[in-house]
Amino acid sequence: MDSIAYFDNAATTFPKPEEVYQFVDRFYRTCGVNVGRGQHKLASQAAKLVQDTRTALLSLFHCPNKKVVFTHTATEAINLILQGLPISNDFNIYISPFEHNAVTRVLNHLQRIYDINVIQLAVDKKALTYDFDRIQNQFAENKPNWLIVSHASNVCGVVAPIRKLCNMAKLCGAITLIDMCQTAGLIDVDLSSNDIDFAVFAGHKTLYSPLGVAGVISSFEIKPEPLIYGGTGVESASQALPESIPERYEVASPDIAAIAGLYASLHWIEKTGIENICSKEQENKDKLIAVLNEFPNVKVIDTKKTESIGVVSCVFEGYSSDNIGQILSKQNIAVRTGLHCAPFAHQFLGTFPSGTVRFSVSYFNTDDDFEKLESALEYIEENS
Amino acid sequence: MDSIAYFDNAATTFPKPEEVYQFVDRFYRTCGVNVGRGQHKLASQAAKLVQDTRTALLSLFHCPNKKVVFTHTATEAINLILQGLPISNDFNIYISPFEHNAVTRVLNHLQRIYDINVIQLAVDKKALTYDFDRIQNQFAENKPNWLIVSHASNVCGVVAPIRKLCNMAKLCGAITLIDMCQTAGLIDVDLSSNDIDFAVFAGHKTLYSPLGVAGVISSFEIKPEPLIYGGTGVESASQALPESIPERYEVASPDIAAIAGLYASLHWIEKTGIENICSKEQENKDKLIAVLNEFPNVKVIDTKKTESIGVVSCVFEGYSSDNIGQILSKQNIAVRTGLHCAPFAHQFLGTFPSGTVRFSVSYFNTDDDFEKLESALEYIEENS
Repeated sequence: MDSIAYFDNAATTFPKPEEVYQFVDRFYRTCGVNVGRGQHKLASQAAKLVQDTRTALLSLFHCPNKKVVFTHTATEAINLILQGLPISNDFNIYISPFEHNAVTRVLNHLQRIYDINVIQLAVDKKALTYDFDRIQNQFAENKPNWLIVSHASNVCGVVAPIRKLCNMAKLCGAITLIDMCQTAGLIDVDLSSNDIDFAVFAGHKTLYSPLGVAGVISSFEIKPEPLIYGGTGVESASQALPESIPERYEVASPDIAAIAGLYASLHWIEKTGIENICSKEQENKDKLIAVLNEFPNVKVIDTKKTESIGVVSCVFEGYSSDNIGQILSKQNIAVRTGLHCAPFAHQFLGTFPSGTVRFSVSYFNTDDDFEKLESALEYIEENS
Repeated sequence: MDSIAYFDNAATTFPKPEEVYQFVDRFYRTCGVNVGRGQHKLASQAAKLVQDTRTALLSLFHCPNKKVVFTHTATEAINLILQGLPISNDFNIYISPFEHNAVTRVLNHLQRIYDINVIQLAVDKKALTYDFDRIQNQFAENKPNWLIVSHASNVCGVVAPIRKLCNMAKLCGAITLIDMCQTAGLIDVDLSSNDIDFAVFAGHKTLYSPLGVAGVISSFEIKPEPLIYGGTGVESASQALPESIPERYEVASPDIAAIAGLYASLHWIEKTGIENICSKEQENKDKLIAVLNEFPNVKVIDTKKTESIGVVSCVFEGYSSDNIGQILSKQNIAVRTGLHCAPFAHQFLGTFPSGTVRFSVSYFNTDDDFEKLESALEYIEENS
């Protein structure tokens, strides 16, 4: 297969740093066992790796006082929290206009059980900036019980002012949840504040680890009910799950290979520098937008008035998004088209139901990728 | 580190076949993307691999008419079924005496909500054989609503007569669930029968795949409520999960590397032959028991009167299990001690609460492993 210009990094970053592949393979071949303390040397070594990965994550987010619970996907982490928190009728649940189905489908499930209000935070439709005055009014009118915000939209890349939003919600007594799937390891975030109750990360996106590891960072002063019941390797005689964190939520065999990959990618991020990763990704975003802007029939969703990451959505006049995806695929350009599991974001942006063509860059995109993209867009222009 | 004689294969098989490591590494490096049909070439290639893995699994279990739902762990699969099935007060739920906390802790959770009866199937304590006459009486006295049976005990290796048990329960109208964590890929099982509603497998044990992939095989004529809500990549505009299987239950990004590993290990199983794998594992079990029987202070749980796999539990007179585990670890022997997340099995076997020392073999144990074990046991005998 010809080499592919990969602009689907918001789905999963690809490739990963070379050391991630190497470390995963080596660790799996030499220590791919089930974690357990004091059982045997390999199990202890695997347990130490898991522990060291937790420490590295808390260091990355400047919150050594908090705890990490690993899950297999960010979706599982979000379900663990939202299905596990106390809830009752008349709850006001604020979300950003950009939430993924990993949030909104859980809320839809809860709405079938409880009479709750799901309210979108006020965001200016043109500037795509959060309108704090209107949000203050929203909170005054309907006191927030939960606040759930994607740190960056997986559709248009807009970054939410999470510190300010969580602080405003916290002053009203809300529980706050930040979805950092598109930003963990890319934007330097301090999670030590008590304003952020739960922060969810996905290893395989901006953290450049393999698929199979994600999780929650929290003080766990608020303890959701468990989502999954099973063996924990500790307190096995009891039929209740242990109260201790992370054991309460980490049932079954941890995916040691994926966690080894996260360990290696965290090391790569530390070595490379999160600011260098971010500035390289922003450079690649600028190159991407420059290429897209060469073509008058490509309408890019404009995020210039706000902070955004390297996730860029656009529509091609005269084409459906899926049609463009197919043409680009034939030209060896990888993009993701349609609704990106975030229908409300597209409704807000005015691109529902046909969706957009989404281009998303990473640290690893090359000039060759952008040249290939330019050629492919020229081909589309010439043949339209 | 000196090489380790690994007898903890019931926790996870180690090592894996060489081609599994190679295939995972190569696939991840060339195609480690997010699955999606018609999105781009790599995504389509990843989607094809997932589809081919489903087909290979259904072929292994002789049930091309059934469906595979992938989860990340067998525990998640069991929770999906048991938390998702219709249930009401006075349900009679039959389990084997050997169930893992992955089953019993879910039932304990359900018992906090419903007034249900959890009943152990009658098994002869000496022969460790299922007593069909007594079970028939149990079913007559308290009609079974659910039957949940581990195909093989992760504590003592005893194999349950699943076809007969499921047939008996099905005649009473029960829903049946088989936990094949310790047997999938090792014992040739035909799952085409309608007597078995749900069969759960774990990739990383007897299927010799990496951690991170497990699942359920079923006709899904009975559809549990979903456990986790989120994006599926299909029908994204809808806030309800799709009705179609497997999409209804497979939310979030599938772990393509783990599934690639399962694809490769299924190929290895087909090439090697399930009967050859089983007979080699039985040979290794016999070698293991022969070594253990050389030492009079080692009391092996006797499974000679029934079928069993290469999972052998024993107690060392004069020592706690954990103590033996530590001594063996220093001698570079990997075992698992204690309750093995199956306290009821130990209660039944009379080894609760101190547990046992569990030795579990795989296809890959070598004569060198058994020699190392013999030397270590001699060392313990001499120093006791």
